[in-house]
Amino acid sequence: MAISLEQWVAKICDGDRRAMAQAISAVERREPCSADLLKTLFHKGGKAYVVGITGAPGAGKSTLLEKVAAEYRQRGKRVGIIAIDPTSPFSGGAILGDRIRMQALSTDEGTYIRSMATRGQLGGLAPAARDVALIMDAAGYDVIFVETVGVGQDEVDVARLADVTVVLLVPGMGDDVQAFKAGVMEIADLFVINKADQSGVERVERELNALLSVTPQPDGWQPPVVRTTATTGEGIISLCEALEEFRAATEQSPAGLKRRKENTRLQLLELLRQSLFEKVAQEQFDHERIGEYVEEILARRRDPHSIVEEIMRASGVGTDRG
Amino acid sequence: MAISLEQWVAKICDGDRRAMAQAISAVERREPCSADLLKTLFHKGGKAYVVGITGAPGAGKSTLLEKVAAEYRQRGKRVGIIAIDPTSPFSGGAILGDRIRMQALSTDEGTYIRSMATRGQLGGLAPAARDVALIMDAAGYDVIFVETVGVGQDEVDVARLADVTVVLLVPGMGDDVQAFKAGVMEIADLFVINKADQSGVERVERELNALLSVTPQPDGWQPPVVRTTATTGEGIISLCEALEEFRAATEQSPAGLKRRKENTRLQLLELLRQSLFEKVAQEQFDHERIGEYVEEILARRRDPHSIVEEIMRASGVGTDRG
Repeated sequence: MAISLEQWVAKICDGDRRAMAQAISAVERREPCSADLLKTLFHKGGKAYVVGITGAPGAGKSTLLEKVAAEYRQRGKRVGIIAIDPTSPFSGGAILGDRIRMQALSTDEGTYIRSMATRGQLGGLAPAARDVALIMDAAGYDVIFVETVGVGQDEVDVARLADVTVVLLVPGMGDDVQAFKAGVMEIADLFVINKADQSGVERVERELNALLSVTPQPDGWQPPVVRTTATTGEGIISLCEALEEFRAATEQSPAGLKRRKENTRLQLLELLRQSLFEKVAQEQFDHERIGEYVEEILARRRDPHSIVEEIMRASGVGTDRG
Repeated sequence: MAISLEQWVAKICDGDRRAMAQAISAVERREPCSADLLKTLFHKGGKAYVVGITGAPGAGKSTLLEKVAAEYRQRGKRVGIIAIDPTSPFSGGAILGDRIRMQALSTDEGTYIRSMATRGQLGGLAPAARDVALIMDAAGYDVIFVETVGVGQDEVDVARLADVTVVLLVPGMGDDVQAFKAGVMEIADLFVINKADQSGVERVERELNALLSVTPQPDGWQPPVVRTTATTGEGIISLCEALEEFRAATEQSPAGLKRRKENTRLQLLELLRQSLFEKVAQEQFDHERIGEYVEEILARRRDPHSIVEEIMRASGVGTDRG
């Protein structure tokens, strides 16, 4: 790119979609310029509301997101969507009909959709999603949705980068409410029971409320439960209002500050982890050298820990120049 | 512990369950002795067959595992189980009845069950599971099962540490077969359609076969599809035979060697990533210092990348003493 970093950043902040897309690609591919780009863009952002949405495949996350995004657009907000659910139509995963429906959103100038691969992502998904959200934030997107599938460490990590986390349930999940208990209950700031026109909605709401009543809420926030039927748009305005209410409640509160501090701390440590690795891996071995190490391990001539200690010594870690 | 590392290792290799449990705990807590312990144990193992089992909550993984473990016990094999599914009865997640049922297994001297938290695991689940498998391997467990929930990066990572990966489906999943397409199809060496006594088994098998017919099999292995009804034991022997067949097919084959090389490479890189981070984090900052960094980021006085660069300079990374 023949333009300077300053020009590039200026274009992004002016809302140039092409410049933003190029920045996201550069960051995803970890091009040499990406750290400088993120450093500069960091100081341009800080205004966006990042909303994590998680739920099992088939819960209707994408349809819900489509309607919520439309509602925010009506309110004059610009909306970014980061899809890291492999089954999402946003990431091209789901059936064709969904994808066609999504095109209405993606041609709107005030909406930007970016899907991210859930595999092969160096250093994990959460850091990559955080960087993309940072770019969208600097580009002036007011609300940024991050869509994930709802079981596993990834979702917990992604929740940590969001200002608010919405967990989607559907009627007829039965034991699956139980399944959510272990990991996802604690990260939810807001529950949505989607497909509320289907039978069983009372049962899932009752089970959820029973679980909530025994789950400690250290920050004093009782997660509301909103019923929606995304296909008809029912409940979407209530959901947007609940989102805004949570934002107002946490923007200045001690609990909200505590959460932002903890998120920032975890993000800083993750960035350190990844940067150290990239630097040392780049300096200390090429494809051939690592192939030799692998041969030694497979032949049980050497163990991985001894090899890693050797690499760390060679890289100078621990020599302390500070 | 007053005994020497050598004595500890000798006890583990002698099959002392208490010594093994202590080793696993030491490694999970990353106690100072754990690297030396793993280094020594590495040279005692290499014989176990590591089997990854993944599938959605409610697919019946634990019941299946219980029956498969019993079959391997009948064949005179010692069986280790690592449960990193938060909904698994092995990890105490699911309903009480399941957990009681599991106790029959856990009191058998030839079976060892260990559950691992899916949250808060420093450096990710896959490295921790790999270390636990290494200890069980050295302790003489012949077959080691690693049980995960089936969507997300964690599962892909865990699959990479296994010698074989089994993906569980159930009838009535409908679009969920589609959901598996994106991430889990490529890691499956063997498919099980459990609850094969329920209606819809033909449909899910037909959909699966349709997907398989368009999925390239670079290693020339066509994943077999085994029907089981874990509750009655139907199909369990076929599954064990398919597992053994896969083992025989890959133990000496170029495709099997290629896979072991790639797994070893990824594990080595992951160990390096984690070790670097722990070393630098330990040397370079305490709780107070990181708190100051967090304040600076939240106030937007400094960006995370600049802080990480400062920490890396101070830690000596890149000074190259090799």
